[in-house]
Amino acid sequence: MELLKVITVDDAKRMMTDNFKDYILGIETVPLRLAAGRFLAEDIKASVPVPAFRRSTKDGYAVRSRDVSGAAETLPAFLKLTGEIQMGQAADLPVGDGEAVYVPTGAMIPDGADAIVMIEYTEVLTEDEIAVYRPSFVKENIINRGEDIQAGALVLSAGRKLKAADLGVLTSVGRLEVKVFRKPVVSVISTGDEIVAPDQEPAMGQIRDINTYTLAASAEAAGFVIGGIHVCGDDRAKLGRILKDCHEESDIVLLSGGSSVGTKDYSLEVISGLGAPGILCHGLAFKPGKPTIIANSGGKPVIGLPGHPVSALVVFGIIGDYLLNLMNCAPQRIEGRVEAVLTENVSGAPGREAWQMVRLVETPSGFEARPVHGESGLITLLAEASGTVRIPRNTEGIPAGTAVQVFLIER
Amino acid sequence: MELLKVITVDDAKRMMTDNFKDYILGIETVPLRLAAGRFLAEDIKASVPVPAFRRSTKDGYAVRSRDVSGAAETLPAFLKLTGEIQMGQAADLPVGDGEAVYVPTGAMIPDGADAIVMIEYTEVLTEDEIAVYRPSFVKENIINRGEDIQAGALVLSAGRKLKAADLGVLTSVGRLEVKVFRKPVVSVISTGDEIVAPDQEPAMGQIRDINTYTLAASAEAAGFVIGGIHVCGDDRAKLGRILKDCHEESDIVLLSGGSSVGTKDYSLEVISGLGAPGILCHGLAFKPGKPTIIANSGGKPVIGLPGHPVSALVVFGIIGDYLLNLMNCAPQRIEGRVEAVLTENVSGAPGREAWQMVRLVETPSGFEARPVHGESGLITLLAEASGTVRIPRNTEGIPAGTAVQVFLIER
Repeated sequence: MELLKVITVDDAKRMMTDNFKDYILGIETVPLRLAAGRFLAEDIKASVPVPAFRRSTKDGYAVRSRDVSGAAETLPAFLKLTGEIQMGQAADLPVGDGEAVYVPTGAMIPDGADAIVMIEYTEVLTEDEIAVYRPSFVKENIINRGEDIQAGALVLSAGRKLKAADLGVLTSVGRLEVKVFRKPVVSVISTGDEIVAPDQEPAMGQIRDINTYTLAASAEAAGFVIGGIHVCGDDRAKLGRILKDCHEESDIVLLSGGSSVGTKDYSLEVISGLGAPGILCHGLAFKPGKPTIIANSGGKPVIGLPGHPVSALVVFGIIGDYLLNLMNCAPQRIEGRVEAVLTENVSGAPGREAWQMVRLVETPSGFEARPVHGESGLITLLAEASGTVRIPRNTEGIPAGTAVQVFLIER
Repeated sequence: MELLKVITVDDAKRMMTDNFKDYILGIETVPLRLAAGRFLAEDIKASVPVPAFRRSTKDGYAVRSRDVSGAAETLPAFLKLTGEIQMGQAADLPVGDGEAVYVPTGAMIPDGADAIVMIEYTEVLTEDEIAVYRPSFVKENIINRGEDIQAGALVLSAGRKLKAADLGVLTSVGRLEVKVFRKPVVSVISTGDEIVAPDQEPAMGQIRDINTYTLAASAEAAGFVIGGIHVCGDDRAKLGRILKDCHEESDIVLLSGGSSVGTKDYSLEVISGLGAPGILCHGLAFKPGKPTIIANSGGKPVIGLPGHPVSALVVFGIIGDYLLNLMNCAPQRIEGRVEAVLTENVSGAPGREAWQMVRLVETPSGFEARPVHGESGLITLLAEASGTVRIPRNTEGIPAGTAVQVFLIER
């Protein structure tokens, strides 16, 4: 029986960084319409200033601020109205001393003016005269050329996961396609003699495989592409062949089941045979994730996950997201959470961090976190849960009534 | 000038519920592999119990608990080892008085046994005898038939947004395809004489349209399908035609720009002409979302969004998500948030709720929320922001140093 190399989740993350931070995914060019959610593979610099011209932020009159400096409700400034700028047109009507030009929100501001007086503070007296009832300061209601983005400025950096607003930035600087990292391919192998493919009718003693579906769905939602999906009995030679094929064709291989220390668990052996340096850790000091293998097989991560569906999904949630960001040169994202009051005592795990699954219930006084219990083999446990409460190592547990942070299960 | 019908966000949500809660999306059947993230359109009942047989949760020996009731380190119970159950096989080796049968984790438990003694607490003495060093209680390390899911039980309800774990539940009960609601189609129209389509070179005074890209990306990430995408100048007849087409072909129409009270804003008019009952509200008491129109045009929602890209995206984030869940008969989801310390004073908006965009920065002592400032026309504002701090109505603002909830911008 080989000794487990058990490490903490934080140590596992450091180990993955050391081993895979230089992993090269390759780059592809995509049109902007398909770029949301992808990771940028280039630094984006603005080729033009944004906005490209001085714009008004209000409907009003372009004026010289010194012409209205003394204006008041009781003592308006009178200005000569010389015309109007149309939306989308060049502002070819310079504002001279004592003059005003109408400018709608978003339109170009004519030369000569240094402020926009909001229409609310003016009155049209005749066709060519207005009264202004308030003073304006210089640059009031004006966005300068290049104020949002200067020409040549770095606007988005490689590694950024593009969100909707980023597409706006890219459009603004005239980019209609961008270089992004190729989505990493993940293969999923579920092992165990008791497991049949989901479309087969299980005989007595057999169960339908769950992990290929749940892990593939979670990986796809995270941003992976799914490669091979296999269900394999505890047959060492067959498992070795499948694993080798998946390893060649994928960036990451997930192998669920067979990673505890039992009589028929070949995972450790077959992963070890896949390439150097091999097994990095065998065991995560984390409940429910103990029987986890992390290997570097010829430069690619191969992950042995627990066979229990809930444990497999929870561990993949940690390792998969971490690897995805790492391979895409992206910062680790900030996880969404909700503060809630724990409704029951929950116990910790000696020497290990523990994750307690909870269901969040909104009440008039705030959120309650209701622990969801059951054997870890029960998939309904995770389906019922809306989040997890993390119980630190070397803590006996958390008493009922405590305000806790609940990390949301998002996919 | 028509008076704005300004209402609060909460009132707008109630109004949308009243108007659109019975909207019928239609139903389609999808294979499980494509079901993650979709909204279930049927109640799922289990046709079989899960698990279908009594299973062991540990590697160990199936025993009768009364046979080991007095067992101790110093006084082991000796049992006759009669054989072994194979993974994936029917357990056809009943356990009699004084007998034990080896059962690996996940395998079927033979009749007669009522507990599994973990292998760690036993010793193999001869080929057919073991010593047990601890007592077992009834049902120890056993999951009963149907313990996870009883046959006939309701396991998932219509309206549920399917997550990875749910696919595990569906697989368990033998479902390989499910009925889901058709994704609602949203069309996006961006209006304004200053706007050119993103692939055109803007002349002086013109700008590239941003809103079609950002709104379409946000809508798609939320779970909508994108229908028509149009950029239209302030041309009433043309806008009317485009809006009519989009309205016929889509479940929801978004129209950005032209909803403030200016000289050339036709949105209100063209939307009013689209069908009864028409405009429900014109103005949200919410910063930055004031110039928002919500209409019920012949039963379908038509939404007029602010022209400012940041405002449009923020308002769509509220209304779009609300409508999506409403149309899918789903509960409104719990938003992810992070507690952080505000680094600057931020001011509220009199009589309106205000959202202050912030950048979250992780420090050794926790998260900081750093306000991101700028004119609301600046798209970089939203790209830089990682979340929003919500300042209640009738609050002057929030002082620096306050612990605040930051709602994460997730797409």
